[in-house]
Amino acid sequence: MKIVLDGMGGDDAPQINVDGAIAALREFDDVEIALVGPQQVLEQALSACADKEGYGLVKSRLSIVDAPEVITPQEHPVMALRRKKNSNFCVGMDMVRRKEADAFVSAGSTGALMAGAMFKLGRIKGVGRPALATLLPVPGRPLLMVDAGANVDCKPEWVVEFGLMGSAYMRRVMNVDKPQVGLLNIGAEAAKGNEQAQETYKLMAQEQPFEFCGNVEARDALTGCCDVLATDGFAGNVLLKNTEGVVSLLFGMIKKELMGSMKGKVAALLAKDSFRALKKSFDSTEIGGAPLLGVEGTVIKAHGNSNARAIFCALRQARSVVLSGVTDVIREELALMTRAPEAQEEKPQA
Amino acid sequence: MKIVLDGMGGDDAPQINVDGAIAALREFDDVEIALVGPQQVLEQALSACADKEGYGLVKSRLSIVDAPEVITPQEHPVMALRRKKNSNFCVGMDMVRRKEADAFVSAGSTGALMAGAMFKLGRIKGVGRPALATLLPVPGRPLLMVDAGANVDCKPEWVVEFGLMGSAYMRRVMNVDKPQVGLLNIGAEAAKGNEQAQETYKLMAQEQPFEFCGNVEARDALTGCCDVLATDGFAGNVLLKNTEGVVSLLFGMIKKELMGSMKGKVAALLAKDSFRALKKSFDSTEIGGAPLLGVEGTVIKAHGNSNARAIFCALRQARSVVLSGVTDVIREELALMTRAPEAQEEKPQA
Repeated sequence: MKIVLDGMGGDDAPQINVDGAIAALREFDDVEIALVGPQQVLEQALSACADKEGYGLVKSRLSIVDAPEVITPQEHPVMALRRKKNSNFCVGMDMVRRKEADAFVSAGSTGALMAGAMFKLGRIKGVGRPALATLLPVPGRPLLMVDAGANVDCKPEWVVEFGLMGSAYMRRVMNVDKPQVGLLNIGAEAAKGNEQAQETYKLMAQEQPFEFCGNVEARDALTGCCDVLATDGFAGNVLLKNTEGVVSLLFGMIKKELMGSMKGKVAALLAKDSFRALKKSFDSTEIGGAPLLGVEGTVIKAHGNSNARAIFCALRQARSVVLSGVTDVIREELALMTRAPEAQEEKPQA
Repeated sequence: MKIVLDGMGGDDAPQINVDGAIAALREFDDVEIALVGPQQVLEQALSACADKEGYGLVKSRLSIVDAPEVITPQEHPVMALRRKKNSNFCVGMDMVRRKEADAFVSAGSTGALMAGAMFKLGRIKGVGRPALATLLPVPGRPLLMVDAGANVDCKPEWVVEFGLMGSAYMRRVMNVDKPQVGLLNIGAEAAKGNEQAQETYKLMAQEQPFEFCGNVEARDALTGCCDVLATDGFAGNVLLKNTEGVVSLLFGMIKKELMGSMKGKVAALLAKDSFRALKKSFDSTEIGGAPLLGVEGTVIKAHGNSNARAIFCALRQARSVVLSGVTDVIREELALMTRAPEAQEEKPQA
């Protein structure tokens, strides 16, 4: 399979992308990678790797596809895509559209990635809105949150679809048997929440091609009560960022508190390995990126602050997603989905 | 001043309320407390305190007001208030309405407390919706979040009012000079967020009787970048519950990790005091309760799982709020507020 990797995505591009690509090619024999971006810049980054161990073995499966223009996260996604036809996003997505490649991976602009996927690949038939799915970096039972921030104003039926797509992903990519889909809400009872959450609950409680386990409060989201957390992108993003913020705040406070006394310093020394293990379990690097579910193709958004290891993980994830056939599963299951009558009528124009 | 305390509120009622009341009366000479609830139940709880230290000194300032009916958190608030005219909430709120008491404190049903306050005390003129304000239990600069869950579907102008009321509270009750009001959003830029957040931003950016410091992401909310976090009650509740959940999860994981090795056990022993201090800084007990801002009177919601200390803290807070005159400040400042033209027209019917 061939994966297109945005050579210019991420704070530390292009080197992280080149290094991540080489690592992935060494690990997976069945993968080819096309680095997309300004030819000269990428060639220079590649030439810096010429002496690296194993590069000689994989370079035949690594190519550069010239895209002289680059879209940055600071640009307006839709305007930039229209203006920069020869950009990393346009050239890369076109390859996936023409079936010259199987997946697109980028640590660049989330907006450009999403808009590019919508315009170039299109939505899977029946999908109201594609959504970003994020595996929350918590230990034990992994939790996939859909939507993590792509759709800030949602119709209830879209959130139901997020649940369906998340369930398909957990089954096919993460090998979870009968994933439990919860709805993020501010109380456990059916009548809790804002208008949108109440309507979504009603739809989810109908016959659906996934297992609905009811409302899930933010307090319980990270304690393993479900496999998929369906939510609108605003609340989802608040939960995601807040989790990151609280974890980082708490580790900082523990460090400061322990370093304030001699006893604490000794404790910190003794507990060094334990804290390292804990921090690692919250590290999003190993998770890969956030797949954009609901588009006709495999699209993975890697973190903007990715290092080479994170890019490797995102490429590994792209390979798993392609092999899993999850896009086909989503397409098939959407056809089975129970929809509110208005939603069915409205869909074709959406 | 006289404070009405719901004798039947909280998981461990009535004893926590009786004990908390006695502690508050011992601390504050200028306070009288009326315990409201079924006379016999409260008398029995009081008689159990007859031998306690200091009870004799304060019992003249502690009275029981009979309310034979009790509204539980499981009941529909509005229906229960209509049916149970002699309930703790109706009898207590009526005392505040008739100016026989200055404040109402309850660890009971949030819904009944809010609906009771709305019906019996009424909104401050110009307030779209009263809101629950919660001081987030984070160290350093305290952060007041408004709304913490009372209003799950909000108009933008209500959220602006939450900012105004929160600012008044921080100035008058918490003695913060020029509180910075942030808007919870999923990005820093003005154009970020859902429709409601974008509209709220536009209104807040106009001339307002408080200091608006822009959008605040959930990642940064707990790191001291503002004093008041204005938000709709849905996102606010997600942030509040998620923070509690992540803190509790992390402390649990640290304990488990350390107890898994001999080195870890020694470290845990050495760091015992440090961890105790950290846990305390996240403990909501000392904070008191959540004031309901925007009603004509002082109303404090204490946690359902309050202990006697938490009830004491909520009573201490009620006293501070009454002395601060914050209700008058909110009334005066609302008159100065910049409103969108539609909002001004719509207000009288709201």
